[in-house]
Amino acid sequence: MQLNNLGIVKRNIVRADKDAVAQLSRFSSGTIHEAMGRVGLMLPYIRPAYSGAQMCGTAITVLLHPGDNWMMHVAAEQIQPGDVVIAAITAECTDGYFGDLLATSFQARGAKGIVIDAGVRDVKELAAMQFPTFSKAISAKGTIKATLGSVNIPVVCAGAVVNPGDVVIADDDGVVVVPAAVAQLVADAAAAREANETEKRAKLAAGTLGLDMYNFREPLAKLGLRYID
Amino acid sequence: MQLNNLGIVKRNIVRADKDAVAQLSRFSSGTIHEAMGRVGLMLPYIRPAYSGAQMCGTAITVLLHPGDNWMMHVAAEQIQPGDVVIAAITAECTDGYFGDLLATSFQARGAKGIVIDAGVRDVKELAAMQFPTFSKAISAKGTIKATLGSVNIPVVCAGAVVNPGDVVIADDDGVVVVPAAVAQLVADAAAAREANETEKRAKLAAGTLGLDMYNFREPLAKLGLRYID
Amino acid sequence: MQLNNLGIVKRNIVRADKDAVAQLSRFSSGTIHEAMGRVGLMLPYIRPAYSGAQMCGTAITVLLHPGDNWMMHVAAEQIQPGDVVIAAITAECTDGYFGDLLATSFQARGAKGIVIDAGVRDVKELAAMQFPTFSKAISAKGTIKATLGSVNIPVVCAGAVVNPGDVVIADDDGVVVVPAAVAQLVADAAAAREANETEKRAKLAAGTLGLDMYNFREPLAKLGLRYID
Amino acid sequence: MQLNNLGIVKRNIVRADKDAVAQLSRFSSGTIHEAMGRVGLMLPYIRPAYSGAQMCGTAITVLLHPGDNWMMHVAAEQIQPGDVVIAAITAECTDGYFGDLLATSFQARGAKGIVIDAGVRDVKELAAMQFPTFSKAISAKGTIKATLGSVNIPVVCAGAVVNPGDVVIADDDGVVVVPAAVAQLVADAAAAREANETEKRAKLAAGTLGLDMYNFREPLAKLGLRYID
Amino acid sequence: MQLNNLGIVKRNIVRADKDAVAQLSRFSSGTIHEAMGRVGLMLPYIRPAYSGAQMCGTAITVLLHPGDNWMMHVAAEQIQPGDVVIAAITAECTDGYFGDLLATSFQARGAKGIVIDAGVRDVKELAAMQFPTFSKAISAKGTIKATLGSVNIPVVCAGAVVNPGDVVIADDDGVVVVPAAVAQLVADAAAAREANETEKRAKLAAGTLGLDMYNFREPLAKLGLRYID
Amino acid sequence: MQLNNLGIVKRNIVRADKDAVAQLSRFSSGTIHEAMGRVGLMLPYIRPAYSGAQMCGTAITVLLHPGDNWMMHVAAEQIQPGDVVIAAITAECTDGYFGDLLATSFQARGAKGIVIDAGVRDVKELAAMQFPTFSKAISAKGTIKATLGSVNIPVVCAGAVVNPGDVVIADDDGVVVVPAAVAQLVADAAAAREANETEKRAKLAAGTLGLDMYNFREPLAKLGLRYID
Repeated sequence: MQLNNLGIVKRNIVRADKDAVAQLSRFSSGTIHEAMGRVGLMLPYIRPAYSGAQMCGTAITVLLHPGDNWMMHVAAEQIQPGDVVIAAITAECTDGYFGDLLATSFQARGAKGIVIDAGVRDVKELAAMQFPTFSKAISAKGTIKATLGSVNIPVVCAGAVVNPGDVVIADDDGVVVVPAAVAQLVADAAAAREANETEKRAKLAAGTLGLDMYNFREPLAKLGLRYID
Repeated sequence: MQLNNLGIVKRNIVRADKDAVAQLSRFSSGTIHEAMGRVGLMLPYIRPAYSGAQMCGTAITVLLHPGDNWMMHVAAEQIQPGDVVIAAITAECTDGYFGDLLATSFQARGAKGIVIDAGVRDVKELAAMQFPTFSKAISAKGTIKATLGSVNIPVVCAGAVVNPGDVVIADDDGVVVVPAAVAQLVADAAAAREANETEKRAKLAAGTLGLDMYNFREPLAKLGLRYID
Repeated sequence: MQLNNLGIVKRNIVRADKDAVAQLSRFSSGTIHEAMGRVGLMLPYIRPAYSGAQMCGTAITVLLHPGDNWMMHVAAEQIQPGDVVIAAITAECTDGYFGDLLATSFQARGAKGIVIDAGVRDVKELAAMQFPTFSKAISAKGTIKATLGSVNIPVVCAGAVVNPGDVVIADDDGVVVVPAAVAQLVADAAAAREANETEKRAKLAAGTLGLDMYNFREPLAKLGLRYID
Repeated sequence: MQLNNLGIVKRNIVRADKDAVAQLSRFSSGTIHEAMGRVGLMLPYIRPAYSGAQMCGTAITVLLHPGDNWMMHVAAEQIQPGDVVIAAITAECTDGYFGDLLATSFQARGAKGIVIDAGVRDVKELAAMQFPTFSKAISAKGTIKATLGSVNIPVVCAGAVVNPGDVVIADDDGVVVVPAAVAQLVADAAAAREANETEKRAKLAAGTLGLDMYNFREPLAKLGLRYID
Repeated sequence: MQLNNLGIVKRNIVRADKDAVAQLSRFSSGTIHEAMGRVGLMLPYIRPAYSGAQMCGTAITVLLHPGDNWMMHVAAEQIQPGDVVIAAITAECTDGYFGDLLATSFQARGAKGIVIDAGVRDVKELAAMQFPTFSKAISAKGTIKATLGSVNIPVVCAGAVVNPGDVVIADDDGVVVVPAAVAQLVADAAAAREANETEKRAKLAAGTLGLDMYNFREPLAKLGLRYID
Repeated sequence: MQLNNLGIVKRNIVRADKDAVAQLSRFSSGTIHEAMGRVGLMLPYIRPAYSGAQMCGTAITVLLHPGDNWMMHVAAEQIQPGDVVIAAITAECTDGYFGDLLATSFQARGAKGIVIDAGVRDVKELAAMQFPTFSKAISAKGTIKATLGSVNIPVVCAGAVVNPGDVVIADDDGVVVVPAAVAQLVADAAAAREANETEKRAKLAAGTLGLDMYNFREPLAKLGLRYID
């Protein structure tokens, strides 16, 4: 048994069911996070490189070293149409690991987007290409190509565990990871939740108070809520 | 006398004069902050959820616990047309307390916007609704409904004291709080200041230097400013 | 010899060659940073006040004290068409040192933009004026006019040394400083780099992998990269 | 009515009852915070300048500008034995406003310590003097004396409202503010709480589980907690 | 299959081999991290609550909600002598989840220490008890007991995955996680590494340069390092 | 002319006058910073790795890449007794570049300490060795040896320019850089300042107010300071 798995590229990964991914792509990160029982969310410092970026796909994972983006090119070869790349770094780093050249390559391979726990650059070009990019920072600082990392091993990205093949949904509100094995279950739960929300929204728009719609008055009173003048 | 005022909803609050609020709504946060003598500004980590968000209204305050947005629904009932909701948290938190459902409810009640010292979500929908939202973070993470807070007590939000009924002005530059009692005074001072600025802007655009327009050369020389070649 | 150079305005500075500046203006901050050998970049916390802001010009430097923007007016007089103002502060500060009035004055003098290691305000107006503004923070808080600083001395701004006359290129990705003496060299290197990138982009868009285009397979294998199933 | 209260020194303030202050000085910041109903705590970025610093006293408040500590000398004159100085700044600042000279002066006046929402310096000397100092930062950078602030007005310091005369308790865990009017009530509640804690500590040390001591098993089971193997 | 595992307590976990844990306890976090191939380290914002804190044990994991430490009591019952508690939170939080009462309980159960991705309090008492405590923050703010979390599920704590039973080593330099399955392998690798370091230290102390000891001169020259005068 | 100076080691540097360095070693960072006219200070995020660390020496500079400490060994050879090492990184990084092995080597060469704009490790050993170490972070994460940097070129470290041979003074309050050319001048100014402070300290300890000792009452009154009851 080896002590670490740096320097490994796993070629055959089990991707989440395509149909479940398609269903999940219709929901927001918030809806899916709630549907999952409020787990699986990346930390909120991950932000879209351009407003309105949105993506849903199956994860290709890559683990890189600070200031070194060599393994991005190794990851590119593993991309299949519908995948998203999830890039974790072994230490805190804000360098610009990813720009328009890599985006061009990833897009040509069929990638739906990228999440990286570090920096990106060429954000104007990324917006023009409409290649959904989510990152911790924006930085013109490029990286070198000197050290091995790994592709398609489990990684921690912005506080969330991502296994290759998991579904990753990202939009303006954040990034949520759905384990491949529960993709359909979560899609169902999200659908139920959303149906429910449409009805609620209509009631609230008509002036109904949440206090009444959710029957909050009684439990609040029991806890001692007092109205004074 | 009680030790704290958690679990209280104050129904009758004294709102700033409507006419003064209307006047204040014509000025930027920066102009009003200067007009007040450079006090009353929230810390600059509060940012609009979408570019161009802008609001002016009288404060409904709400104090919530980390990860719990229950009292938002209690606050909703206290909103009158022209109010803005100012939400403070008892500890540092980035969870998404506020999204499109609550915004729909607040908007139906006549709210002009919200400032929250925590996170929000559904930012794309909030932008589409044009519901001015100012927050410390954006996060898809939802909150629970388990603990009492209070509505319409004095709160500290992002470093500024807000009393219910105060005027809150927010735009791309920041959020400023005008105590209800001085709303008209500040509106007058802001108007005087703005008139003055228009004239200055024209001079500066014509190439006049601030050094000459403000007569800075003499005091600078007195302090020892030296020009060298 | 004096112990510090506060209170000094240097009038005659050697600006980078105009033609070299014009050439540099055609490249992104990332391309120029790479062309320089990956030095000269400001820290990535400097961000454009509005999306799409972009500038290239010769530096007028100004050193200010926390909460005091008096020297901005002194700097204004030293601006010549094609200059950009680089503002450093003697301590950490997020106050709004710069807004639409100063921008009007700077623009009237021919300035191409500003970088400030502190806050700015009136960001909506700055966007409307299309005056490229890059800063650490956005804050409605104004500043006073009480203490001397200096103009056109070497400064450290966001981690980068800037000498008066240096070329400063800023865009959505960051801010890079090119010493005046090497402006033409860097422009040439950037041009060579960019030509090269266009070709690479086409290949990548056509589906060629970086692994093959850059001949990475062999060095990666030598370092021990292993493919598993 | 004036728009702001900068430039004011209030001489006569109502200090909390001496006996209540003496009682409060026996409890930790955590115990008092709980006794108050979990309000009144400053943000946790305020830290002791030396390990073990501890203080309890009545507040003299001072509001200063970024980089300017002039009003500290004005505050010094208002100190009476048993007071602590609470220093707020009108904007974010990390400069070293306070060092061994001011500490010597404050100590000679009978001050019990200081809390400042900015930086301090001479921390080795402050530790040697055993002058309790709590701050946001440590910085050798000194400040100037150029602008007016105020003494003994209500301030917001690190997120907490402090009125002159309030009791401020600070130790390694944090800083808590007790309004003068409830000092005795809080002291009583803290005493009750502490008595209770001693007993609990003994039980826990003897191996009793909190689950049993607090009867948590039943409510946890009701919420659905499941034990699996 | 369920969507999340909140509300679960796993009683039977596979702890790392006791002998391997004992061996690992002799090495620093840095040595172990290197021995593992430079993976498994928590982010450096986790710091000891008192200088010199040091621990090594098998992980009991607990997942809590922001501002709620109820599950700490559930975790206490699962502690066996030699365990350490690893506490993760579902969102960013700095509240004081852990103080001297819980430490007394944990210590009575035989715990060797705790790591928490949030705040702790009573740091003076924790130091007096010599109960090794590692946290993101120190805060007097207490927590409530209202929501279910889980015990002994895999968690992400400060960027590192921790499975129940893994070995966690923490000291002044950081916190490193060794998967139970490789504990002996890592202990062996660390021992080899340390033997090697003792010899190196003696040579360096005698004045030998690392350049010569590690034979760096040739590879550096090959890369183009130039010495100038 | 070359575009950058990576891969260069400058052997002959002009160190500040030894006698001036000896004089400067008697003053605190704060005193020297004031004596220099309040310039030359590093940002306050640089902190001693152990309390009480203190150093004064002539700078050997080294520029390193993120996650790579190879050039530290190159720098070691350039150290002469009385030098301090100033390490800058080309991008933000918190990795542990420096630990007890390198400290042993540096100490054997006669180094007085180190400042690094990144992380260090082995802090317990560094304290035991009493090797003054000042850093941005503490991290057990080690670094690799793969890329060239430079030794004895001008660097920006934590916001301050350092040229090889400059005097660097560091203590609990911060780190200040004195250009070699003005070392004696600054030492004289610091001595004058300190003499002055001793006298002031005695007066303040005797109860004299700063208001009177510095004659602040009149200028404060002129600015409009008002005393109210």
